[in-house]
Amino acid sequence: MTTAHAAPPIPTVDVLRTILDGRWSEVRDEVREMLREPLFAPQHGLSIDEQRDLVMKQARRIATTSGPKLLFPKEQGGEDNVGASVTAFETQGFGDLSLLVKGGVQWGLFGGAIRNLGTRTHHDRYLADVMSLELPGCFAMTETGHGSDVQSVRTTATYDSEAGEFVIDTPDDDARKDYIGNAARHGRLAVVFAQLVVAEESHGVHAVLVPIRDESGNTAPGVRIEDDGLKAGLNGVDNGRLAFDGVRVPRENLLDRYGSVSEDGVYSSPIENPNRRFFTMVGTLVQGRISVSGAAVSGGKSALAIAIRYGEARRQFKAPDSEREIPILDFLAHQRVLLPALSTTYALHFAQTVLVAELERSYNDESFDEQARRELETHAAALKAASTWHTTRTVQACREACGGAGYLAVNRLPAIKADTDVFTTFEGDNTVLMQLVAKTLLTNFQSEFGELDTIGTVRYVAEQFVEQVVERTGARAIAARLAGVVPGTDEETSLLDRTQQLELFRWREKHVLDGLARRLRKGITDGNDAFDVFNSVQDHVLLAAQAHVERRILEAFAEAVDAIDDESARALLSQVCDLHVLSTIERERGWFLEHGRLTATRSKRVTSAVNDLCRSLRPHARLLVDAFGIPDEALAAPIALGEEVERQAAKGQPLE
Amino acid sequence: MTTAHAAPPIPTVDVLRTILDGRWSEVRDEVREMLREPLFAPQHGLSIDEQRDLVMKQARRIATTSGPKLLFPKEQGGEDNVGASVTAFETQGFGDLSLLVKGGVQWGLFGGAIRNLGTRTHHDRYLADVMSLELPGCFAMTETGHGSDVQSVRTTATYDSEAGEFVIDTPDDDARKDYIGNAARHGRLAVVFAQLVVAEESHGVHAVLVPIRDESGNTAPGVRIEDDGLKAGLNGVDNGRLAFDGVRVPRENLLDRYGSVSEDGVYSSPIENPNRRFFTMVGTLVQGRISVSGAAVSGGKSALAIAIRYGEARRQFKAPDSEREIPILDFLAHQRVLLPALSTTYALHFAQTVLVAELERSYNDESFDEQARRELETHAAALKAASTWHTTRTVQACREACGGAGYLAVNRLPAIKADTDVFTTFEGDNTVLMQLVAKTLLTNFQSEFGELDTIGTVRYVAEQFVEQVVERTGARAIAARLAGVVPGTDEETSLLDRTQQLELFRWREKHVLDGLARRLRKGITDGNDAFDVFNSVQDHVLLAAQAHVERRILEAFAEAVDAIDDESARALLSQVCDLHVLSTIERERGWFLEHGRLTATRSKRVTSAVNDLCRSLRPHARLLVDAFGIPDEALAAPIALGEEVERQAAKGQPLE
Repeated sequence: MTTAHAAPPIPTVDVLRTILDGRWSEVRDEVREMLREPLFAPQHGLSIDEQRDLVMKQARRIATTSGPKLLFPKEQGGEDNVGASVTAFETQGFGDLSLLVKGGVQWGLFGGAIRNLGTRTHHDRYLADVMSLELPGCFAMTETGHGSDVQSVRTTATYDSEAGEFVIDTPDDDARKDYIGNAARHGRLAVVFAQLVVAEESHGVHAVLVPIRDESGNTAPGVRIEDDGLKAGLNGVDNGRLAFDGVRVPRENLLDRYGSVSEDGVYSSPIENPNRRFFTMVGTLVQGRISVSGAAVSGGKSALAIAIRYGEARRQFKAPDSEREIPILDFLAHQRVLLPALSTTYALHFAQTVLVAELERSYNDESFDEQARRELETHAAALKAASTWHTTRTVQACREACGGAGYLAVNRLPAIKADTDVFTTFEGDNTVLMQLVAKTLLTNFQSEFGELDTIGTVRYVAEQFVEQVVERTGARAIAARLAGVVPGTDEETSLLDRTQQLELFRWREKHVLDGLARRLRKGITDGNDAFDVFNSVQDHVLLAAQAHVERRILEAFAEAVDAIDDESARALLSQVCDLHVLSTIERERGWFLEHGRLTATRSKRVTSAVNDLCRSLRPHARLLVDAFGIPDEALAAPIALGEEVERQAAKGQPLE
Repeated sequence: MTTAHAAPPIPTVDVLRTILDGRWSEVRDEVREMLREPLFAPQHGLSIDEQRDLVMKQARRIATTSGPKLLFPKEQGGEDNVGASVTAFETQGFGDLSLLVKGGVQWGLFGGAIRNLGTRTHHDRYLADVMSLELPGCFAMTETGHGSDVQSVRTTATYDSEAGEFVIDTPDDDARKDYIGNAARHGRLAVVFAQLVVAEESHGVHAVLVPIRDESGNTAPGVRIEDDGLKAGLNGVDNGRLAFDGVRVPRENLLDRYGSVSEDGVYSSPIENPNRRFFTMVGTLVQGRISVSGAAVSGGKSALAIAIRYGEARRQFKAPDSEREIPILDFLAHQRVLLPALSTTYALHFAQTVLVAELERSYNDESFDEQARRELETHAAALKAASTWHTTRTVQACREACGGAGYLAVNRLPAIKADTDVFTTFEGDNTVLMQLVAKTLLTNFQSEFGELDTIGTVRYVAEQFVEQVVERTGARAIAARLAGVVPGTDEETSLLDRTQQLELFRWREKHVLDGLARRLRKGITDGNDAFDVFNSVQDHVLLAAQAHVERRILEAFAEAVDAIDDESARALLSQVCDLHVLSTIERERGWFLEHGRLTATRSKRVTSAVNDLCRSLRPHARLLVDAFGIPDEALAAPIALGEEVERQAAKGQPLE
């Protein structure tokens, strides 16, 4: 037990919250105020119909605020402030997640597609009604048979030049649109992604606006709508299936920013290459992923706030020679479950802040070029995967940490768990996203995000990577020299040296990526099939993406800590950052040991440093979750709001 | 890529299932048949009231079978076959888990307490009605304020010698009985655990039978019943809260096997020490934990059967230069998610078989002594924790592996996830159980299970452990020598040498335990507070229990594989065992590297051996889940029962 982590002076909760809230703090406070309204109070045990009705009612309330306007151009009455919009969405993640997703479908996906894939005519015609929720809509991309591989959807939009119309068809059930939010009950217009066929030539996936219900709710002719029924969570969202049988829509219904068809049936596009065109179109929807990432972090914050407040109040087992029972958060095992998860949640919060700033720049900064866009897409995919996986693990840990109480609906962990669960597989399956990240890294951002398929990537790497490996080998030598300085000096301190922490994460990223490139090249030069080569190292591919995103997350956290003016807050969050780093290294220590970046002795020190940091941060755990600024009305769990404190006090064991 | 894992000849599904089914295969088949009845078909979207009604109806159907009788003495019409009983329960884990828990409460906990804590009078009076479900009952042990620390429950049962009655009181809400199955709706009689007070002297926790409702369902006078309301899962079980205000019951209602009160108010017990008496009483309930362990494994099997059948049918992304899409189970990343989990599920199945055989011996083998009983309790606690944590992780992984389809209720993963989720914290919180396991190991089974508190354990270790450490150091030297032989020879092969695998797991268990004892002794001799010493190494404590149970699980699997007559089945399950071992070592390789039991090179080989085994077992994945013998009617998920196969075939990509 070292004394390296002396208790720092304690910042106030307001100071911490101001740091966390950052640039769009006013928007955050507006959403917090709204979540305090009785309309938004969590309810349990509603039927699926009641949940859907309630969520629609809540969404209509949101439609009266400026929230939805943030996302849309001023020309149509919007406020054109994407950063504020994504931040509002993140804050709304403290409330009911069905409502969040319902709004995300309406304004982010449906409205976002009209904005980003449509042109002025579409904007003028639809966006005001989208914002006001007068026109509830669907984003019909995923099919039963194609979710991750959207480029292969099989719905068709065939141009009939005589009628000047597109004919929308669903060949079979594999090609029906599935899991579509707003489809089962409320949606009237759908953005349908379909293979565009003009004069018997296919031009790849394009988006077409297709009415699916009239204003009275009657299903449009030729459209088949099915209800996806009960789900694990998010049951306030009316997910459904759409199938089309020769449904005709006017030519103007094609969202034609990246591809248009003239009246007489001539296709044209500003992007020649169909593959590149597709990924450019999909790329404009990047804010969906960024929004999910932020919402996931918020879900994790709610779960941690509940578990940590309860862990502080809840007592079990008597202290030695005493009638006092021990708050469960005083047990090291309990700290180890919750505090590293809390530290990584802080890290993800700051990583999300960086990502949102980047998104904001993509809208407003003219120097934001193609390379920057590729990096943004890669960054968004990587962080979405990291955030949602982290939240899945964290919410699970929080549920267990609250025992039986955590299993009761009234304490909200069941809903947070069930609702966030799908985040890891929607808006891009995490495993698929991480592969796209790795492919982009392998090609050093030379290709559009997602553009290169597996074979293309492997061939590219085989041809292009030699030079970069050589260059990076130089970097590695420097890193190794830096590392060589460390052992023998004060090992414990050096674990807490931020520069060395960053260096370690960077070195790992480069080493894993270089190793991956070498294995791919060797596989190809040995004459193996490109797909087999890639598939045989898929675990290495995923590790490369993981090492990448972990480096980015740490950089964001470290920079945020450095930028804090308040000394006590900086000291506290620096410890939180240390816990994030060391618990990550502890989890990954097998790799670091294998690659000679940790000695056995040092590796064991990592474990004891994690224990020290847990003990040291335990008194501040409540402060750290209170700083998230989750309104009590939204947090709502009785065990987190005094119920357990009162029970303990009633039996003579008040909160210390 | 090595060729060490050549495809073995393929056993039939019947051969495999016979091996898995083992000794009580007839009982398994009877339960399977029952689960095929329409009454037991999974239903989704029922209200909580409808779920409770349905489950009660199903439970009444079970009451007409011999199932409940297996658990009870022949004198009262039972069949007294505990092994068959636990096996039936495990098989029933393929069906609805609310029903499983409802039955577990009625027959296992409520009936089990009457059987094990009561005497002949109680048996004669109640057991027939318990078996037939004429008398639905509750097991009222846990209180809102005391779950893990049951010895500290605060409900009192005070003897009134004038009236010859016990008076049951709940001092405050902290002491109300909570999460009690059968309490909210159906229970009529409760086994209430309370501090027994006779002539103002407390004799510790005893169990008293307290009527809570009459036959018409009216709440008994002085009893307060609340509904726990909606939960994350298991909503077919009517969990509730019970509070007592001066409720009087006759003296005969004390379950008096381990403590009785004479008419004139004299307490007597066959066990002098109150602490030992308590843990003996609790110890008789060990089969509850064993049952939960088995049911958890069954839940994991169902999830794996769904995910693997779907993974074989589901296709995504085209194969290179082909219109054929790739079954997602062909991707290494997908194999790595599902197949190691499958291998460990096999391991746990065989570990469970050993545990059940031990339980059965405890009932029928006269040589089953106190030491054997301690080992059984330790074994049950350890395996319950291992099984339930494994299932929580596995079901989560299966849900994600099925993407959006896995999020739909109809595909059953949501219910399996939500229902099994509480298994990690009920029937003993896993973290607390693992600490009890470690304490028992530290005291080398010298104390009753759970009997020594933290301080007692630390003092015991400080005093007693010197000798054992010396003895074990000898063992370690031998182990180190054995290990020294290995490197330099064929490293890849040696990873697959069962003797060396076992040796590695055994060495780890001993090394972790010895290290823990040394740290505890040092902490004490350094003059630290015993509680602080224990708490500061709590992560090490949990690791000791984990290393112990992982060794036991591997031994059980290895022995089961050795005992297989059929050559092809033995070869296949030997590979499954290898995957279990190597994926465990891979996960724990940080520890093995730190302790010099893996070199960096060898550690990397473990990873590639896991990949090889995944590829090698992939063609047999379907066979391995089919061998679980889960009836289609119970599995029920359309994606696992041909729906996806049909869709793929309809678009021209039939199952290969």
